[in-house]
Order: sequence, then C-alpha cells, then structure tokens
Amino acid sequence: MKIGIIGGGQLAQMMALAAHPLGLKTICLEPTPHCPASLVTEVMVGAYDDNEKLQALANAVDVITYEFENISTAALNHLKQFCIYPPTQALTISQDRLQEKRLFEHLQIPTTRYTTIHSLMDLQAAIKSIGLPAVLKTRRLGYDGKGQYVLKNNEDIISAWENLKTQPLLLENKVAFDREVSCIGVRSQTGEIIFYDLIENQHKEGVLHLSQITCTNTAMEKLAQDYVTRILIEFNYVGVLTVEFFVKDNVLIANEIAPRVHNSGHWTLEGADTSQFENHLRAICGLPLGSTTTRGKVAMLNLVGVLPDLTTLLKLPHAHLHIYGKAPRPGRKLGHVTLCTQDSSIFAAELKKLIG
Amino acid sequence: MKIGIIGGGQLAQMMALAAHPLGLKTICLEPTPHCPASLVTEVMVGAYDDNEKLQALANAVDVITYEFENISTAALNHLKQFCIYPPTQALTISQDRLQEKRLFEHLQIPTTRYTTIHSLMDLQAAIKSIGLPAVLKTRRLGYDGKGQYVLKNNEDIISAWENLKTQPLLLENKVAFDREVSCIGVRSQTGEIIFYDLIENQHKEGVLHLSQITCTNTAMEKLAQDYVTRILIEFNYVGVLTVEFFVKDNVLIANEIAPRVHNSGHWTLEGADTSQFENHLRAICGLPLGSTTTRGKVAMLNLVGVLPDLTTLLKLPHAHLHIYGKAPRPGRKLGHVTLCTQDSSIFAAELKKLIG
Repeated sequence: MKIGIIGGGQLAQMMALAAHPLGLKTICLEPTPHCPASLVTEVMVGAYDDNEKLQALANAVDVITYEFENISTAALNHLKQFCIYPPTQALTISQDRLQEKRLFEHLQIPTTRYTTIHSLMDLQAAIKSIGLPAVLKTRRLGYDGKGQYVLKNNEDIISAWENLKTQPLLLENKVAFDREVSCIGVRSQTGEIIFYDLIENQHKEGVLHLSQITCTNTAMEKLAQDYVTRILIEFNYVGVLTVEFFVKDNVLIANEIAPRVHNSGHWTLEGADTSQFENHLRAICGLPLGSTTTRGKVAMLNLVGVLPDLTTLLKLPHAHLHIYGKAPRPGRKLGHVTLCTQDSSIFAAELKKLIG
Repeated sequence: MKIGIIGGGQLAQMMALAAHPLGLKTICLEPTPHCPASLVTEVMVGAYDDNEKLQALANAVDVITYEFENISTAALNHLKQFCIYPPTQALTISQDRLQEKRLFEHLQIPTTRYTTIHSLMDLQAAIKSIGLPAVLKTRRLGYDGKGQYVLKNNEDIISAWENLKTQPLLLENKVAFDREVSCIGVRSQTGEIIFYDLIENQHKEGVLHLSQITCTNTAMEKLAQDYVTRILIEFNYVGVLTVEFFVKDNVLIANEIAPRVHNSGHWTLEGADTSQFENHLRAICGLPLGSTTTRGKVAMLNLVGVLPDLTTLLKLPHAHLHIYGKAPRPGRKLGHVTLCTQDSSIFAAELKKLIG
C-alpha cells in the first residue's frame, strides 16, 4: 500500500520512518522541498491546497492522511471519492475553535466557557460576563500558542484586539489549571478503539516542553478515554486522535482536539509497545492495531530553538534522540529526546540530568 | 556526520533507518540500484570492490562501515587513510575460516577441531583423524549454510569434494550440539564494551529461523561475553561484533565471528532499550553507547522465501513486522517479526501462534 501524507514536517517524517518496516510506501505533499520528511521519503512539491497536486497525490496512493490541521478542507472535498483518514469532518471541526467547542458541548464533554467575538464591543461585553483573566483566540489557524493572547487588564484587551481584529475570534475564560494532560486514542477501520496512557504535558512559551506518564489507571484517565471515545464514534473516526485537557481540581476540561499523531505522543516511539505513528498507519491501512502498553517509566523532552550538545545527551544510557533535520530558529521544534527504562530510580536520576 | 555503508541489503536498510533520528546521514555502495537500502537512503551504484567508487564513497563521508563480510579487503586497503569501522583486520579474519580458527586458538577460545584440505588425499586422511560426521567448508565466501557440506559417508565425501575442490577448504568435526547461541557485543571508540543478552538461535536449512533470549544471567553467558571481549580487545574493535557458538554439554564452542550487525540481533529493534543498529552507529561515530537491556520476553522469527499473510501476523498485538522490500525467492530472507512483551504468559501464547 502507498500512503499520501499532506505535510512534510517531523510528524510526516516519523510516519514515513514507521511505514518502511511495515512494507508501506509514503509520499508527502509539501511546498518546501528540503522538509524533514524529504530525508526519509518521496516528496511531491506543491501547496497543501493545490487542487492539481492533491489530485495527483490521490491518484498515486491508496489512502491519504495529514500531519497537521491547517489544510484546506475545500481542497480535500474535491477528493471525496478517495480514501481520506482521519475523516475530513474531524479535520473541519478541529480547524475552528467554535465548532470544536460546540462538539464538546454536543458530546457533553466539559470545556471552557467561551463567547464568539465580532467587535470590540462584543469583547468588552464578553469580558464582563466571563471575567479576567481570559484568552482571546482566533477561531482558525492557531498552534503552539500562536494566534492567542492572554488578557489580564485593559491594556491587554486593546492590544490583543488590534492584533487579531481582522479575524473571527473567540473569548474563553482562562482556566487556572493544575496541569495539562492529553489523551491519545486510536480507532481502526473495524471500530476497535485503544488508548495510550494519559500524558501530562508541561509547556514553555506556548510550546510543549515535557511529556510524562503520571496518571495511569486513575479515574481521570478512564474519564478522558470515555470522552475521546465519544469523539471517535461521533466521526466514525479512523486513525490517531489526540485530545488536550486542562485539569483543575481533578476535573477534566477539554481544550482542543488534534485529528492526527501528536507531539505529546512522541514518547511512544520507544516508550510504548507500538508507536502512535505505526498505529496511525495500521489504522488507516486497515491493519490490526498493535499493543499500546507503556514500557516502564517514560518522559519526552522537546528540543526547541537550538540543539543542545548531543553527545552529552546520549551519555544518558536510556536517552533516545530524534533530530528532525530542521535549521535552528527560536521557538522551533528541532527534535526531541525520550527517556525510557523499567527502573524507576535510574529514570528519576536520568530525568533530573536531562531537564537540569 | 555522514556514514558510508558498503552493501545495500536489509542490514544497511536497518542501519539507515536507525541513523535518521540521530541526525546521521547515510549512503550505501551497492551494485543493485533497487536494493532494500535504496528505499530509505541514498545509494551509490557500484561494485563493492570498485576502487574508484570506494574512493568516491570515502571522500563523501566521515566514516565507512559495512553490512557483510565478503568485501575485498584489498580494495579497502586503498582507503587506509580513511576511517573504517569495524577495523579491516577483523574483516580479513572473518573472511577466512582458517584465520578465524587460529584467532580462536590464539585467544584460547574453544572451537571445533579442523584441518586444512588441499587434496582428496588430505580429506581422506583428515576424516581418519577427525572422524565422521564432519563438515567440509570453503575457507572463504560461505554464509547461510552455503559453501559447506556435511559428510556422513563415503558418497558424501566424493560429491562434496567434487563440488568444492577448486577452492581452499577446511574440514571440521561436526559438533552434535545441544543448541546454538550468539553473543553480540559493542565496543565504543573510548573502549567501553557492552553486551546484549545471549541469544539462542534455531536454523532451518542453514538459514536462521528463530532467535530467543533463554540464557540470561547464566555462567555460560558470562563466559561468552568474556570470549567476545578478548576478540574486541584483540582488534581494538569499534562497532558491533557477533560471535556464534555451539553449545554441547554446556560447553561453548566458537563457530564463527561476524564483524557487523547480525540477523540474530534483529530482536533488539523493539526488544532492547537501544537496537544493535543504533549502537553500531553510535560506536563508529564516536557517540556514547545506549543501554542494551532486554525489554521483557522477546523472540525474532525470520520470514524466508515467501511472506505470510501480514494481517494475520499483525493480529498478534505484540508482533512487530519488518519487511525488507525484496522479491520472494526460496531461501531468501524477506523480513522478520519480533515478539516483545513484559507478560510471560501472553508472550508464550503469541509465540505459539507465531511459530505454529
């Protein structure tokens, strides 16, 4: 089988690397020829919404998938007769924070309070109702903290409004959460649903910094899996789906969905029996899913902006390096490190060295 | 760093797949353009002993390694000023069963009794001394049971002699071994030596069929590691080295060395903290070695001749598939399956289904 991947970043790269051993071929549609995926697979150079290229991609493969949300669903709709997984309906909803909120409400999944904003007057009224601090977000095209502003005072309100006012907006109450978690589920073409252990995530400047497994076998994990199951079934979903939650007083508050493999699941490459990348491919290709059991103690640290000294990193005997082949740039994800061992005390000692 | 690999088969393919996440680049020298490695890395098409191509390869990379023994060391000797790991001296000795035997004797590692054979008269005299059954082997270019004949009676002697007489030969006593094991060691550029768990191997028609970890923490494992250490130090070795032993009445009898990653170590891809491929690359690139700890219960089954139904295989939740992308042919290694889980009873049940 051959899989067409829209996007050629590190997620596409890791999918391609997972595809080879399964005997699956991949090709990415990506405007940047020297993208991370180009190091490991064929790349069709073209814009994500280039109808002609999308058509050529569809003609060349058995199934189409994607590595990020910001893809023109209008363009994908021209390919309706082709096999696209995850379903484009999930993609459409994940692209629009308002539709996402409505999905959560429809499926009775707790989420933040929110109001749509069309004018400064709307914004001021919404703040009266929701209170401060609040977060003003673009409805579309946000990622890694981009396209959103935290509002704490009047000055913030004016500057955020000036920066975002040309776009459809949403105001949400800012949850003073205790922690953030993500739940990664996989649904096969036969409807089988399995989960990875619930992941606790720490962010730095809006970008994922550290993921760890801290809530295994808790009631909260069960509940998160129940929520994700509702979404998977709603969309007759096939592939990996990630849902991010805030946790406040042990209550889960859904933040957003990502209909794809996810940064918070990179630890599964070494830390789970079968990685999220392999299980995504298995799902979309109609193959049976592999075990998602966690292998001992696991953590994943993103390498952002500049790469640290890799020899120092690899001196940790249980560290695994993943370099994406991207040029350094502030705030850019250049790679990640996984720590994985059965021994809790070795894990603690190496993690301390890793995160300093 | 960029690594030149001589050979483009599945071992080169798996090295290239291990190189990408480490940010290492690879290029293979291989006469067949559509080789397994070509699916995942750059290939320089040329004969293994093409001096010009070897020179071009050396100029393009930081270090040269190889995926099999049958490489012209004469050709490599032209590249003496370049960095070649493992050392070519180990390669030279592994290419000649006589030199290999003398190495074992020199390092006081028990091996089979043997005699060099230059004539039918030599052969008949040697059989009188060594007895039957015995094995007549070419000194050079043997692998997967090729280039050797088991002699049980007079007829065998005549036909084996007729088939092999143009080549330098060795007669060995045939050990009625209880089992076969292999020991895989890795030595870094700083002289650090680590081992994977001792592996028990079953062959079918001269080709490796099944590898399992059955002798962990035994006195025999310690002794095997001691023997391999002697060889690693003898050569000031850098990289992965595999030594195959017969076991008879719990005594280790060295059979052969392979100065490279080895089929009996394929289980390390999922079954060890760091795979043999990654540790080989780390060693030859001067990086620290990664943990070799085995992750629970592990087995590796070769897929030889024809591929079985892959969906059926993947229905085993702890099975991992590795397809090399080669055309089916009797006796040809087309891929392998690893089984790996912490749970002994699940492992036993899945292994039973896997090997039927």
